[in-house]
Amino acid sequence: MHSPELIVHHIPVCPFSQRLEILLALKGLRDRVAFRVVDVTRPRDPALLRLARGSTALPIMRTPQGVLRESLVILRYLDELFPAPMIAAPDPYRRAVEAMLIAREGGFTAAGYRYVMNRDRARSSAFRDAMLAQYAWIEDFLAWQSPGGVFLSDRFGLAEAVFTPMFMRFWFLEYYEDFALPAQGFARVRRWREACLAHPAAQQVCREEIVKSYYDYAQGVGNGALPPGRGVSSFAFAPHWRERPWPPRDKYAPATDAMLGLIAP
Amino acid sequence: MHSPELIVHHIPVCPFSQRLEILLALKGLRDRVAFRVVDVTRPRDPALLRLARGSTALPIMRTPQGVLRESLVILRYLDELFPAPMIAAPDPYRRAVEAMLIAREGGFTAAGYRYVMNRDRARSSAFRDAMLAQYAWIEDFLAWQSPGGVFLSDRFGLAEAVFTPMFMRFWFLEYYEDFALPAQGFARVRRWREACLAHPAAQQVCREEIVKSYYDYAQGVGNGALPPGRGVSSFAFAPHWRERPWPPRDKYAPATDAMLGLIAP
Repeated sequence: MHSPELIVHHIPVCPFSQRLEILLALKGLRDRVAFRVVDVTRPRDPALLRLARGSTALPIMRTPQGVLRESLVILRYLDELFPAPMIAAPDPYRRAVEAMLIAREGGFTAAGYRYVMNRDRARSSAFRDAMLAQYAWIEDFLAWQSPGGVFLSDRFGLAEAVFTPMFMRFWFLEYYEDFALPAQGFARVRRWREACLAHPAAQQVCREEIVKSYYDYAQGVGNGALPPGRGVSSFAFAPHWRERPWPPRDKYAPATDAMLGLIAP
Repeated sequence: MHSPELIVHHIPVCPFSQRLEILLALKGLRDRVAFRVVDVTRPRDPALLRLARGSTALPIMRTPQGVLRESLVILRYLDELFPAPMIAAPDPYRRAVEAMLIAREGGFTAAGYRYVMNRDRARSSAFRDAMLAQYAWIEDFLAWQSPGGVFLSDRFGLAEAVFTPMFMRFWFLEYYEDFALPAQGFARVRRWREACLAHPAAQQVCREEIVKSYYDYAQGVGNGALPPGRGVSSFAFAPHWRERPWPPRDKYAPATDAMLGLIAP
């Protein structure tokens, strides 16, 4: 009954929006929310800016009562609005454990984005260390709370909906920075990440789309802005990412629009 | 029935701990949780460090099921564990609005602490501007969500429990930085702040205790560490803060232990 009344404005490849899509997929309720695409490479629609009270951050969600911002806020709202089934843990203590892990998502996300956006090759190893410190924290947390498990609880839950889109975006670190978890010391978080990546409710994007779309982040610019010397954003909707070649893996030698398949060669 | 089983380890003047005390006071359940004092000026008890999985951050809470960290996590846990009355808003949409405001607490807190800890007088106005930007955000948010009200909703709720301890700590900005909200443009947040500060459930600390205890923050050091040339922390339990003189307001001219009443003159 809420279906025409809930509208998310989002960038399709945005991890924050994917959190909402995963949650709805877990509930079997993807069609209860309308998703409207925002082209981040163009100036923002003033009407949309007014809706979000001047904020350019996406996603935002229109509800019958008002506009909500912040993916974690919208995520919990949808989980409570459509409580069958609840994706959050079922009792106060387990919800608190889940919330402790979710509280790290900001630092985790920032570490990965800073790493891919860094343009100083000499500083790459420091960004790698900062990323590994984030994974090490999760390793310790999961070893503390769920040593023998796969997910944090016995199923893919709210923490997984929060982190899985970031695990997917961080494919850009594997591609552009040769980042990989070391063989030793990360067994628990690796098990978690692999199960998250493989979950059927979380297949809204694939590695190829992310690696191609986020090329401009690897050039140090985000949110649809253009790197120097370029005329078309890697987030452009046309040509479709499937029709473009894989970008060069050496992010320190900038590619042209033509090399990226964004314009005819 | 939970009373002997819930134990919070805390620093008495800590704002994060006060959030929990306010929540319990609102519920009339202060005696359901035992508060154990940690002296932040002494090396941390190894047993306590083990409980918190190596983290020195306080408060932590022991529950029958395990240890919880992070004040916002513990706050929601206690609200859900003792749901009569719930302090969080009563429906998903209002809870989401509340959560959007609460999501700003980290930036708000950081702006105030950075400002008081700054030791470069020439940079003071930049820190003041950053603090005012935080208040301006709240001003706009409250004008959006609750233009004619006092609190965010019709009562002192979860967002108020989160922010009030920070409004109180920021008395140190009034004292050491002559910080005040400008007469123009901050009417809504001023109304909110004044009602928060006056609420009967939030009187665990007073201005004098905060100004005296946080002197060392105004010297640029936190968490019980000692400023150069000093031998006793301003967070020391003895002499009691009531027996000490008010510190000099010019934080840029460091006071001695004797001037602060921390040792006999």
